[in-house]
Amino acid sequence: MSQDNGLISIESGLSVTSNPLRCFITGCAGFVGSNLTDRLLQAGHFVCGYDNFSTGREQFLEHAQQSEKFRLIRGDVLDTLRLTDAMRDSDVVFHFAANADVRFGLQHPGKDLEQNTVATFNVLEAMRHNGVRQIVFSSTGSIYGEPTIFPTPEDAPFPVQTSLYGASKLAGEGLIQAYCEGFDFQSYIFRFVSLLGERYTHGHIVDFYAQLRAHPEYLDVLGNGHQRKSYLYVQDCIDAIFSALAHENAQAKVNIFNLGTDQVCKVNDSIGWIVEHLGLHPTIHYSGGERGWIGDNPFIFLDCRKMRNLGWQPKLTISEGIKRTLAYLDANSWVMQRQ
Amino acid sequence: MSQDNGLISIESGLSVTSNPLRCFITGCAGFVGSNLTDRLLQAGHFVCGYDNFSTGREQFLEHAQQSEKFRLIRGDVLDTLRLTDAMRDSDVVFHFAANADVRFGLQHPGKDLEQNTVATFNVLEAMRHNGVRQIVFSSTGSIYGEPTIFPTPEDAPFPVQTSLYGASKLAGEGLIQAYCEGFDFQSYIFRFVSLLGERYTHGHIVDFYAQLRAHPEYLDVLGNGHQRKSYLYVQDCIDAIFSALAHENAQAKVNIFNLGTDQVCKVNDSIGWIVEHLGLHPTIHYSGGERGWIGDNPFIFLDCRKMRNLGWQPKLTISEGIKRTLAYLDANSWVMQRQ
Repeated sequence: MSQDNGLISIESGLSVTSNPLRCFITGCAGFVGSNLTDRLLQAGHFVCGYDNFSTGREQFLEHAQQSEKFRLIRGDVLDTLRLTDAMRDSDVVFHFAANADVRFGLQHPGKDLEQNTVATFNVLEAMRHNGVRQIVFSSTGSIYGEPTIFPTPEDAPFPVQTSLYGASKLAGEGLIQAYCEGFDFQSYIFRFVSLLGERYTHGHIVDFYAQLRAHPEYLDVLGNGHQRKSYLYVQDCIDAIFSALAHENAQAKVNIFNLGTDQVCKVNDSIGWIVEHLGLHPTIHYSGGERGWIGDNPFIFLDCRKMRNLGWQPKLTISEGIKRTLAYLDANSWVMQRQ
Repeated sequence: MSQDNGLISIESGLSVTSNPLRCFITGCAGFVGSNLTDRLLQAGHFVCGYDNFSTGREQFLEHAQQSEKFRLIRGDVLDTLRLTDAMRDSDVVFHFAANADVRFGLQHPGKDLEQNTVATFNVLEAMRHNGVRQIVFSSTGSIYGEPTIFPTPEDAPFPVQTSLYGASKLAGEGLIQAYCEGFDFQSYIFRFVSLLGERYTHGHIVDFYAQLRAHPEYLDVLGNGHQRKSYLYVQDCIDAIFSALAHENAQAKVNIFNLGTDQVCKVNDSIGWIVEHLGLHPTIHYSGGERGWIGDNPFIFLDCRKMRNLGWQPKLTISEGIKRTLAYLDANSWVMQRQ
């Protein structure tokens, strides 16, 4: 079986209380969802996890399955009846199910709309039906498109979308906000940079790592390597979510926070760390161009002062986060196998 | 039959050329769509109109039906096969079909998502299938939510949505923008204030007018009457669309324009003009509160300098637009009958 070592002990802002929350998590078997599940259980809360296992992994729930406070329901967020039924008696919904396949959006243009926008609508309707009014939503820095201001704040100039993924998450945010106004919901919307850490299964880092495991002598890189990216360690991300939920200064109807570090790195920097970690000297082939693919954002750097002002700060730098991720991949090469 | 007098002669920026366009208009039988249809035909273009007549009116197409350059296809934008088939051999798509029922969004939360967001996706997919790459989209000032800057420019701070209608149009914009980036489309997105003029069938003005026709002695008003609104005369709106499409400085991949006048009026002002027009002295009952309903925007005032810088300006003031509308309603009371 796996050597999944996702459960990291970090102090939590959403601590055990005399009145633990009944949390409903869509995408509970995914990279972020499963880490969140573990952390909520660790903090003493009840978790009902919902996942269709299209990209989620059984192994990511091994820790959770050992808890009496965890219940898993296999289901699709597009199955409205099942979803509504599963959500009964919940206090708060963490909507983390998503199609996070940013790069291949153009190959199946309806997928983001269905799995991110319509799915979010289904979650909101299931909440309304069950009288659940608090939602935590995993949005993305991609909704800023190609911003004109760096670092990019939450109230940046009204952006133009450059990817179907960003557009679908923007639509999800809009729906949530309209439900807050119209149905008296409360929402926490987090716009993430790319996350990494334990259970990270797709994106630049795992792609480069997997390539170099398969052919140590060369590496194919999309773009010119100069794209500037931001990464955040998944446990730092969850710390931020817990801090915001518990903070007296984050109790508005709609609470929107960027989440990232105050650093960026170039794609070439991350290649350097991976190559060093593996002790290799590969030839690097660049496909060229500013963007790795259509809709790739050549520069992502979010202004996270709003979240920092609540007292949160990330514990790991980008390079530390990448190294932690590489150590995880060393011990869990199975995550790189397609299911 | 009707005395529809919608066809107003105004010089057009999108003039007759040696190579007339084959225009596809969704919502061709609606308020704006039918006026646009007439204007495009008048300018010498071919129009294929698509409408399901859920809110569109047969009578609005009486002028168009007399033209050999007009073809009507009855169909729903959710019927993807019919839509795709109907769009064949078009040069440009004017996507004006929408659920414009802002006020009652909360009574049927899926309607905006389906008829505005999913419908826009269907239109984009039909375009992709047919190799049509230019789209003109009727968006709305409602997507600014409750802005912090007045007049509100196109690049206002990233807004928070306050209505399902606004959210659904924002999602439509995002999809269109992503198609421009990913599939090399070109788009013209117009964010309208409330439009009025010939064939205006719903909103404050027609509601007040219809009430006073039914019971001249009193008027029920939602809110406190102090909401500040902006209105634009529909022919001025179409002038702007034609101007932008033809202008050398509006040929970007994504072209976004606010459309309104540089005035606002209070709900009480419009009541005054209507009462004066009808020669009545009704008692006015206010429901009270800043907003007429949940999601109603107490202050809409768009910064339209971007469009004005292309040489366009509205020909009618708000009060002139309202008076023109009242004259139309006098002569066409049938539009106030529910179908």
